[in-house]
Amino acid sequence: MISGKTLLIAHLGFPTETFKSPLIYNPFFEKAGIDAAVVPMGVQAGDFETFLPELFKLDNIRGALVTMPHKMMAIELADEVSPTARIAGAANVLRKRDDGRLVADMFDGEGFVRGVLRKGRQLARTSALIIGAGGVGSAIAASLAAAGVTRMGLVDTSDGAAESLSSRLSKHYPDLTVRTGSADPTGYDLVVNATPLGMNDGDPLPIDINLLSSTTFVGEVVMKSAVTPFLRAARERGCEIQVGVDMLFEQVPANLEFLGLGAVTPDEVRELAQIKY
Amino acid sequence: MISGKTLLIAHLGFPTETFKSPLIYNPFFEKAGIDAAVVPMGVQAGDFETFLPELFKLDNIRGALVTMPHKMMAIELADEVSPTARIAGAANVLRKRDDGRLVADMFDGEGFVRGVLRKGRQLARTSALIIGAGGVGSAIAASLAAAGVTRMGLVDTSDGAAESLSSRLSKHYPDLTVRTGSADPTGYDLVVNATPLGMNDGDPLPIDINLLSSTTFVGEVVMKSAVTPFLRAARERGCEIQVGVDMLFEQVPANLEFLGLGAVTPDEVRELAQIKY
Repeated sequence: MISGKTLLIAHLGFPTETFKSPLIYNPFFEKAGIDAAVVPMGVQAGDFETFLPELFKLDNIRGALVTMPHKMMAIELADEVSPTARIAGAANVLRKRDDGRLVADMFDGEGFVRGVLRKGRQLARTSALIIGAGGVGSAIAASLAAAGVTRMGLVDTSDGAAESLSSRLSKHYPDLTVRTGSADPTGYDLVVNATPLGMNDGDPLPIDINLLSSTTFVGEVVMKSAVTPFLRAARERGCEIQVGVDMLFEQVPANLEFLGLGAVTPDEVRELAQIKY
Repeated sequence: MISGKTLLIAHLGFPTETFKSPLIYNPFFEKAGIDAAVVPMGVQAGDFETFLPELFKLDNIRGALVTMPHKMMAIELADEVSPTARIAGAANVLRKRDDGRLVADMFDGEGFVRGVLRKGRQLARTSALIIGAGGVGSAIAASLAAAGVTRMGLVDTSDGAAESLSSRLSKHYPDLTVRTGSADPTGYDLVVNATPLGMNDGDPLPIDINLLSSTTFVGEVVMKSAVTPFLRAARERGCEIQVGVDMLFEQVPANLEFLGLGAVTPDEVRELAQIKY
């Protein structure tokens, strides 16, 4: 129940109609007895830059969840940006600190990482091949580096994107070995599809599946179906897999911790997300 | 349940802690199946002018409830201002029309008027004495004029306030007879206390109670107790009375109509307001 004491979490994006977060966070707040509310605000791209500073002058705002098309601009407007958000070139969450400063972070990739760790895999001193160096690929690469991955392969249909991500990573993680341009999964502990391949019927697989070893962990960001053709092929070769939606559910606890608003488990998130309103 | 399709009604004021409207409007929306939410936003006085235009660029905002300290500035920022808000010099509600224009209105006085009418009293071609020509007195005077009162007495401890309200009234209602400076209730159909007298123990009554006729209807804006010493004295003289809180409950349906968000009865409002959260 919203009252004058409720802490506001703005959910900034456009359009808002398909937002799922209010339906996950608000029932959690109610269940946990936390007086906060996620409130969707439909901000058009051109308005974000002037809206955001005004919004954070509010006395009862704690932070914001940031989604399309504002994730990149969010880091431009924050007072402090985490290394992960800096490498990703984007933020998905903002918090107003007690001193009034606006801090930006990015937990899209953290959601992926938490999912992998929860499945019992180690990430420290391992290697990862990331197919796709756009927004989500950059976020995953940044979080994998933060989780201790020491060798990384980056591929993108635009060579410039992989090179650019490589140099952002190297700046923050000088000991990280990065190689760009090859989609050969041989020798990698982990392979991630961070491209849209799998969204449409008949899409090619993101890598040559015949080169995939059964010991490689395979992750996916596409959520069109739980098990995409790529994941199915990987599973048939004996690989352990992670479905796209895991990244989403694992991200919620990370966002809440950052916002200082209680602890939820991914299983609780999964349960809340399945309720039909 | 807030979703990405929920219409936003901002509740603008500072501080927000004591806001009651979210606890009345939101349960009504839920009960009536209206997908809207009143969301408190703590805007400091100096920020209102820059915040408001940004807020109303949002795609999913329908309007705003405006309270202290922004009621006067609200009319400066609106594209259209109703005569009642113009006379009151303040607005308590804003609506974004379909064409994007921001319309300001003032229903504080309308709440008073609706309460009087609901008690079976006529207002057309009657006379009213209003003690106090500040914010709430001006709003009541404006709404009484709109309801057809043809003769008005205005008094304020500051003579300038009564004179200024008188000229604002006369500009919009040239046929209205207004007299300022006398608190003698003799010959008035209605007397309203729109001063803070009654908030503190030992306050003098706003008028000389011995001059009050039993046929005069007596209204109050002070809500410290339901029946203030002034109302008690009036009732003892046989007058019909209206308590301060009636104005509040009668105002909610007027605000909702203006915002295009359903019809509620004052009795339903009263019931919702009594729920303890």
